[in-house]
Formats: sequence, C-alpha cells, structure tokens
Amino acid sequence: MANTTEFSDVPGVAATRDAETHGFVFNHTMLRIKDPKASLDFYTRVLGFTLVRKNDFADAKFSLYFLAMVDDAGAIPSEPRARKAWIASQPGVLELTHNHGTEAEEGAVYHDGNSDPRGFGHICITVPDVVAACARFEALGVPFQKRLSDGRMREIAFIKDPDGYWVEIIQPTPLD
Amino acid sequence: MANTTEFSDVPGVAATRDAETHGFVFNHTMLRIKDPKASLDFYTRVLGFTLVRKNDFADAKFSLYFLAMVDDAGAIPSEPRARKAWIASQPGVLELTHNHGTEAEEGAVYHDGNSDPRGFGHICITVPDVVAACARFEALGVPFQKRLSDGRMREIAFIKDPDGYWVEIIQPTPLD
Repeated sequence: MANTTEFSDVPGVAATRDAETHGFVFNHTMLRIKDPKASLDFYTRVLGFTLVRKNDFADAKFSLYFLAMVDDAGAIPSEPRARKAWIASQPGVLELTHNHGTEAEEGAVYHDGNSDPRGFGHICITVPDVVAACARFEALGVPFQKRLSDGRMREIAFIKDPDGYWVEIIQPTPLD
Repeated sequence: MANTTEFSDVPGVAATRDAETHGFVFNHTMLRIKDPKASLDFYTRVLGFTLVRKNDFADAKFSLYFLAMVDDAGAIPSEPRARKAWIASQPGVLELTHNHGTEAEEGAVYHDGNSDPRGFGHICITVPDVVAACARFEALGVPFQKRLSDGRMREIAFIKDPDGYWVEIIQPTPLD
C-alpha cells in the first residue's frame, strides 16, 4: 500500500506529515501577463478555465485574474465572502497579474523562465486524450513548444500561452 | 447564482466552456531547484507536501520530484501505472526539477521571477489559520519575504523556499 513514508529514504523527505500542516492546500500559481484580453482568451477558450475572480487596483495600476477549472459552476458560492473562501480552498487555481499598460508595449514583456536566468519551468494541464487535445490546439492555431512527434517523449506536448509560458499537455494513461 | 458567464463581459473571456475541454485538469507547476535535500525538507516538513513520485534520468543528469498535498495516503494507488494516472489526475501538484550537480554550486542557481526579467511570481498555500501558520514558520526559522505585519495587506504573508521562490500564505476567511 502506498503510504507517506514510501520515499522516506530520499534525503530531505520528512518521515511523517506534521499535524500542523493538515488542511494546507496548494491553492494557486501566479504568472504575470502582458495582455489580459489575449491571456483570458487562451485560458478560457483554449484551455477551458473559468474566470472566477477579478480584482482591479486602480491606484496601484494592476489587476488580478483568478481562473479555475470549474466542472460545476453552480458549486461556486455567489455571496462575495463565501466565494472568496471557496476560491482560496481550491487546488489548481491560476492567478494572472496584469500591470496596467504592458499590453501597449512592443514585443514580449515577461520572461518564461526557460532561458537564462532560469527558474520557473511550466504549468501542466492533464487532458483525457492528448492526441485529440493537440489536434484541437493545432486547429485553433496555438503555438507549440514541442509537438507529440518532436523528440523522444511521444506522450508529452508543450504549447505556449500568449506570453510564451510553456504549458505541458499530458494524459493520465499511456498512449496506445 | 454564480455561473460561467458571470465575467463574460471581460474582454477575452469565452462566454461558454468548449465541451472539448471537459475533463481538463490544472495538474502541476514546475520549478527548478538547486538542492533536492533542502527543497524536499521545506516542502514536506514545513509545508506538508508528500513526495508521490520521483524520476531519475541518469543519462540526462536530472531528476523530477512530484509533490502533492495528500490527506489520505491510502488513496494513492501503489501499482505504478495506476499511481502515475492518479498523480496526473490531481490538481495542485508541484513538480521540482533538479539538474544534477547544481547543489554543489556557490550561491543561488535559479531566478525567482520577481526581479528583472520578471515573469513567474509565486505559488500560494492556503492554510486554515494564517496567524498560527506564520508563527510556526517563524519558530522553524523560515525566511519571510513579507510578514503579516508588513505593508498594508495584513491577511497575506510570503515566505521563501530554499531557492528564494515566493510562497504566499493565506487563509480562506478574513482575519478577525
């Protein structure tokens, strides 16, 4: 049976989970974006995210967009405080930060992390059928960093979001 | 009632979710790390993640570590193929990439994304009690980017992981 100490021989891994961490949730990942119109189109139309929260900070000149994969929109509370709590309790939320005015700049504004200086690598979307998903991305004109047919890893693709951030596409099961 | 078209007036937002995206899951975020021993200690002991998968690529000289917040370790299949499918189907997984040898380099190896060139900003962990969580982080000697008492946003803290990546800490409900 799988258990939390399966990898306890790996240096650094805690043998047991501290009870003080119970209830912790990996809620979101934040990426800065140049143009919310382009990014919201990509994340909602192409990838199926739902925009669940938007905060505008006019004085500080930035806006935050929170997106989640929502299978049942009726599950999201409408009352603002309950809604905020619901969003904060979900794993797998994507936060996009827009500093006002960047959309008017020429060329790329942000760094994807995959050339020097490196750091962040990618986000990953799991899809039921990676071949069908990639065919759809091609049909939609989405740019690829790596097609399924590129390189040795035939089960993995990488597409690029409007800022050039890499989005890995996988399916849970092996390709036939 | 909340619905998927609530923000349909925001430029770029798709009015409806394409049926072709059903079943898509925001599975993981990948960060490169200098030293797996330090990062695994931080993510398992300090934050409560469980190491659920480890892949070593000896020829290419890198290793991948997949971490998840696992409340019920018995829910993870032990059979390798089923286990891989289970991990790929979860939202909120963290993938850490270790390029062998970086742990022996002097100083920081990776870029946190929050100084030029900017891009990736942070990951965020939601905790039941942000005050208690921050007191524990202090007691554990975790470095802070922003304490609850710093600045105007008293409900949000940022700690730093061993590579300097920012980890936001929030709770779902307002502070009393």
